[in-house]
Amino acid sequence: PEEKILDDISHRRYNPLRGSWLLVSPHRTKRPWQGQQEAPSKTTLPEYDPSCYLCPGNKRAQGDTNPKYESTFVFVNDYSAVKEEQAEYAAHDQDGTLSTRLLRAEAVTGKCYVLAFTPSHNLTLADLSPAQILPIITAWTRIYTAHLSPHSPLAALASSTTLQPSSHDADVATPNAQYKYMQIFENKGAAMGCSNPHPHGQIWTTTGMPEEPGIELHNLQKYRREQGGANLLEDYAALESDKKERTVFENATFIAVCPWWGIWPFEVMVICKKHKLSLVDLDDAEREGLAEVLAEVTRRYDNLFETQFPYSMGLHQAPLEGTKEEIEASHLHIHFYPPLLRSATVRKFLVGYELMAEPQRDITPEQAAARLRDCGGELYRRKL
Amino acid sequence: PEEKILDDISHRRYNPLRGSWLLVSPHRTKRPWQGQQEAPSKTTLPEYDPSCYLCPGNKRAQGDTNPKYESTFVFVNDYSAVKEEQAEYAAHDQDGTLSTRLLRAEAVTGKCYVLAFTPSHNLTLADLSPAQILPIITAWTRIYTAHLSPHSPLAALASSTTLQPSSHDADVATPNAQYKYMQIFENKGAAMGCSNPHPHGQIWTTTGMPEEPGIELHNLQKYRREQGGANLLEDYAALESDKKERTVFENATFIAVCPWWGIWPFEVMVICKKHKLSLVDLDDAEREGLAEVLAEVTRRYDNLFETQFPYSMGLHQAPLEGTKEEIEASHLHIHFYPPLLRSATVRKFLVGYELMAEPQRDITPEQAAARLRDCGGELYRRKL
Ligand SMILES: O=P(O)(O)O[C@H]1O[C@H](CO)[C@@H](O)[C@H](O)[C@H]1O
Ligand SMILES: O=P(O)(O)O[C@H]1O[C@H](CO)[C@@H](O)[C@H](O)[C@H]1O
Repeated sequence: PEEKILDDISHRRYNPLRGSWLLVSPHRTKRPWQGQQEAPSKTTLPEYDPSCYLCPGNKRAQGDTNPKYESTFVFVNDYSAVKEEQAEYAAHDQDGTLSTRLLRAEAVTGKCYVLAFTPSHNLTLADLSPAQILPIITAWTRIYTAHLSPHSPLAALASSTTLQPSSHDADVATPNAQYKYMQIFENKGAAMGCSNPHPHGQIWTTTGMPEEPGIELHNLQKYRREQGGANLLEDYAALESDKKERTVFENATFIAVCPWWGIWPFEVMVICKKHKLSLVDLDDAEREGLAEVLAEVTRRYDNLFETQFPYSMGLHQAPLEGTKEEIEASHLHIHFYPPLLRSATVRKFLVGYELMAEPQRDITPEQAAARLRDCGGELYRRKL
Repeated sequence: PEEKILDDISHRRYNPLRGSWLLVSPHRTKRPWQGQQEAPSKTTLPEYDPSCYLCPGNKRAQGDTNPKYESTFVFVNDYSAVKEEQAEYAAHDQDGTLSTRLLRAEAVTGKCYVLAFTPSHNLTLADLSPAQILPIITAWTRIYTAHLSPHSPLAALASSTTLQPSSHDADVATPNAQYKYMQIFENKGAAMGCSNPHPHGQIWTTTGMPEEPGIELHNLQKYRREQGGANLLEDYAALESDKKERTVFENATFIAVCPWWGIWPFEVMVICKKHKLSLVDLDDAEREGLAEVLAEVTRRYDNLFETQFPYSMGLHQAPLEGTKEEIEASHLHIHFYPPLLRSATVRKFLVGYELMAEPQRDITPEQAAARLRDCGGELYRRKL
């Protein structure tokens, strides 16, 4: 392909979803690494750990006892970053003084959940079959639905039977206030700040629109206006599905690619091929398609360096509340940001230049995608 | 102060320099930490390490031999992320096709330097006196000056004797092309991706304006237009110097604060109190003032948890080439992004929510500043 020359020269690539550039220096992979090594992951966890605050039947930090759940289990984070109730704080009027101009703050309320993916302490998404991942997707969908604004055009879709609360959703009560955005994410592995290996994700819901989905939404709306109603990510999925150079895995409904503008060495974006605003907008076949892609991506990650591959993963979709234009410009997609670069113990550090100037990557997305395409098949741990 | 309530509630703060928000959750520090511990730093390094590629007289990766330097020493990075010469690549015309719209790239050339701060393998900025830090500042200034566009209004300032090339600047030849921006930075400590403890920083110079200084420059220009020619950071330095709540250290020429909008737990910004466009704009007293502040900040960092405190540090200043408006809106300042949160081994991870949604911090900048103010005095290692 015409872009082969980019394998050998330093260049910048543009991310139209963020409206930002990054630096790509493919030859940097040749430099020797004498820095920090990550601890190889422990692979000998028990199926049940009596000291784990996520295992079924165990006691949690604030005294609650987990039910003996058999599939997913959701509860309010015992150390929530945002809370439903707190002391009142009114932001200062902008009265033109230096203080109000330069020291601006606003209160945030919201709700933080923890979602255990399965009762088994020693499994990860990579160990699960698509059928076992499906309940996680339906749990996300139920929780999203429970927080949707009744005025959202999506609210009408929220009545299907799959979305009815499960007995282990006790904590997912209708919230006190209408929140703006729900961020669903997973930190996996000690290298990505995860402090408990029990498979789980988090869900933070806030009154404010957070920066990243806000920036994406701005650019999705801009593209839609400029391209006569087209959706940037639907267009991008079609382009990648056609080119195949950056595709990791694809089925009828979703595509997983190492995006043209990825920052992390093996960054992957999972995109719905049809324009879908959010989880609640998916039908059964699409949910199954998503489960398959999540299984394929996480299994390939583990196979790549034959290790428990660390990453942060997060869903972007329509805000819980927003203008019609905002909601209709949204497009369901999932980002995976994994730090490993060369092996199970050598990661990419996004530090000095990256923090101060601009993200910089060493291997190209095309090289990363080729390697991930090649590590399909059974999970390495099963073959041992 | 009126803001005391912000110590107890979740809130967002606005960063006018980036035009972005972050989430502050002060109560999160109460949560127990069971995750990854950083390796405590080795403090028993030799003054000279025969296998170090930065020590005087040693051989480097590509075969060059370091001079027996006695102060600073600069050379072209043996594994430069950008190079002066590479194969030609012309960006595609925007012809309206999906490919040119969504797969945009541009070539980048430039020059990367490594700057050894001192010949001693076992010292850090925190071990150096202001008088020993001064040569580092003059080296940065010389290198910046050597790359300045002859058309920059700053070029006229570049003739002072302190700025004449030193005998160890052999590699700092006038570049082949006029580069746009010079990013001076230091990654310190294994936790921040540093692979060699020998005290050194890096300098990456590129044809493109990198994202971060580009965003700051945009907002500095905006403020200047809106506030009748005032400079955002000069105003901010005056405000903090007056309030004292977030001040870590201050002398006649520079102030070090934990900025209102800081993301990292003990993030510090060093700001010139007068409006100065770049290093070359400083006089002798100001260079000495900067050396003292750098000594004070790095020593306090090490004293805080009695460890070699890891951080990424970087200078932002006027671009090497730019419009008169861009150069005159610039203001010299230095960011320190240190990851440690609770102790020498427990860091803050900026991961899932932070990457997917919005930066989140646990302790407030006011709390961080109070702690750093309290750890002045002699370096803990000297007292042992
Ligand atoms: O150039 P170094 O010190 O080997 O590398 C370090 O700094 C670079 C610039 O911030 C980063 O890109 C690398 O990931 C990091 O390990
Ligand atoms: O909530 P956890 O898993 O204890 O904490 C982890 O995820 C959070 C959300 O990304 C981060 O703020 C923390 O720094 C990280 O350690």
